[in-house]
Amino acid sequence: MTKRMFDTTCIGNAIVDVISKTDDAFLEAENLVKNSMNLIDMARAEELYAKMKSAIEMSGGSAGNTAAGVASLGGNCAYVGKVRNDQLGDIFTHDIRAAGVTFETAKSTSGAATARSLILVTPDAHRTMNTYLGACIELGPDDIDPEVIAASKVTYMEGYLWDPEDGKQAFRKAAEIAHAAGQRVSLTLSDSFCVDRYRAEFQEFIEGGVDILFANEDEIKSLYETEDFDAALDAVREKVEIACLTRSEKGSIIVKGSEIQTVPADTEIEVVDTTGAGDLFAAGFLYGFTNGHDIATSGRIGSMAAAEVISHYGARPTSDLKELLQKKLAVA
Amino acid sequence: MTKRMFDTTCIGNAIVDVISKTDDAFLEAENLVKNSMNLIDMARAEELYAKMKSAIEMSGGSAGNTAAGVASLGGNCAYVGKVRNDQLGDIFTHDIRAAGVTFETAKSTSGAATARSLILVTPDAHRTMNTYLGACIELGPDDIDPEVIAASKVTYMEGYLWDPEDGKQAFRKAAEIAHAAGQRVSLTLSDSFCVDRYRAEFQEFIEGGVDILFANEDEIKSLYETEDFDAALDAVREKVEIACLTRSEKGSIIVKGSEIQTVPADTEIEVVDTTGAGDLFAAGFLYGFTNGHDIATSGRIGSMAAAEVISHYGARPTSDLKELLQKKLAVA
Repeated sequence: MTKRMFDTTCIGNAIVDVISKTDDAFLEAENLVKNSMNLIDMARAEELYAKMKSAIEMSGGSAGNTAAGVASLGGNCAYVGKVRNDQLGDIFTHDIRAAGVTFETAKSTSGAATARSLILVTPDAHRTMNTYLGACIELGPDDIDPEVIAASKVTYMEGYLWDPEDGKQAFRKAAEIAHAAGQRVSLTLSDSFCVDRYRAEFQEFIEGGVDILFANEDEIKSLYETEDFDAALDAVREKVEIACLTRSEKGSIIVKGSEIQTVPADTEIEVVDTTGAGDLFAAGFLYGFTNGHDIATSGRIGSMAAAEVISHYGARPTSDLKELLQKKLAVA
Repeated sequence: MTKRMFDTTCIGNAIVDVISKTDDAFLEAENLVKNSMNLIDMARAEELYAKMKSAIEMSGGSAGNTAAGVASLGGNCAYVGKVRNDQLGDIFTHDIRAAGVTFETAKSTSGAATARSLILVTPDAHRTMNTYLGACIELGPDDIDPEVIAASKVTYMEGYLWDPEDGKQAFRKAAEIAHAAGQRVSLTLSDSFCVDRYRAEFQEFIEGGVDILFANEDEIKSLYETEDFDAALDAVREKVEIACLTRSEKGSIIVKGSEIQTVPADTEIEVVDTTGAGDLFAAGFLYGFTNGHDIATSGRIGSMAAAEVISHYGARPTSDLKELLQKKLAVA
């Protein structure tokens, strides 16, 4: 048997998205902050679902979306996340494998059901997420396969994984294995409220050894408790090898030591649903980076992948990103 | 308590659609006839699903789609269909109720899982369906609430319901109750292969008392075993009060005794996925008919609703059809 090699292994909360259109009045009535991710329990999930319009279901989960994106670009990708042996778990498993991602995490066979996120999309295309973590709380260090992590150029983890108690232990174990094998560790801050919950731990973890950090403007400002984006940028460039800072329609900034690259956003598309924008930016950047491209090109691949995913409902690409890449950027 | 009244009660197989893009080569390799509905068992469902690309899940079921369409137009609609008490059953139940449809059929608590249809959409927007009936086989006469049927101006049933053994008994019971209450009975032939399976029974049932029949060109020709559409039209006009014959991009023909109305199809839209076209035509026609419109206007409402549903993936409307109706046809 030949040894398996991966461009990227993504670790995160394995979630099925339940996507429904809504209006601003509904968010207000339900006390939901637009663009945020709210953790909810099963009772609240049932209550909120009952009030939502007809929905569509699609596999999601931040790192799962990133993994699907890397694979769609032609990258060799593995995913680690926990579902239960139920119908939603079967859907998640099918979709990520059908996307071409290696997914071998054992399903839980008792306890909470597979996680779902009730995603409300307003007419301005912004998404507000309400996540019931379910079986995700069962993910732990034992689910980290040292061989897979050591064989991955980058191990990428979502900040959301700090929420389930054992998730961060899995996270730390994976980071140690990756570094011991001379590979890189990458983190996305996920959500500014998530940064609020774990600011000190995130700062410590980043200093301790995150090589590639992804964050949007709100998240990086929250991490360093500043209203000044440039101050946050200066703070983070000291701590990591590469920082990718996304700023929605203002594009993104990629910092590597003294080098700064700015990548414009694709403003020609009609934005339908912003869910997955950050996840797919990370997918594009990681695909580029692990396939020998410079940070500017990797950023442009990220920008292209993000543009694809926000042009339709759902957080995973519906086009073949590899084809798009060749057509739009003439990059193989 | 005031007595409930319904424009339409729709009875059918309660199904969650699993929609995935494919190409013609895949259909050929799997021996699937494009545009058909194939009944499959659980083993085949698992085998086929494993070969399919990433999918999206949406509530479906022919009569369920029609019910959702009637409700979206502002009609008062009930639905009868059987799901199990599982995650897909919860999804189906949520979506049809969220659409504004009265849905009170008891869930089965043992036996087969909620039905699903693996729907393959080719680049030409045509859909090929592979349906595992699951819990639908549990629907029987006991699920027919005489009060609801008697209070419905039209009881509409899908031909597909002939497949599960007890479905047709439920069907016959509902038709008897409707007629005894002076209400109308409507049937869609569903699929030309379905007509092949039950031709004699369908002919007998139609003669015995279908008031409003829906069929596409293939189905009506199959029913009367003729290659000549006009011959089929002449045959059916003798048997029913109203026949609605849909002919895809050629529009539809509505026959009521000596009156014939032709309704053009909306050819300005970009067709993405034809799933649900017939279901939504029926929804529009039934909404119009039960709200006092003539057959020409009812046909135009049907055509408009069908155009909406084929302009996106999934077999239920994603726009507010009532708004569309006021805007496009100036009909309230």
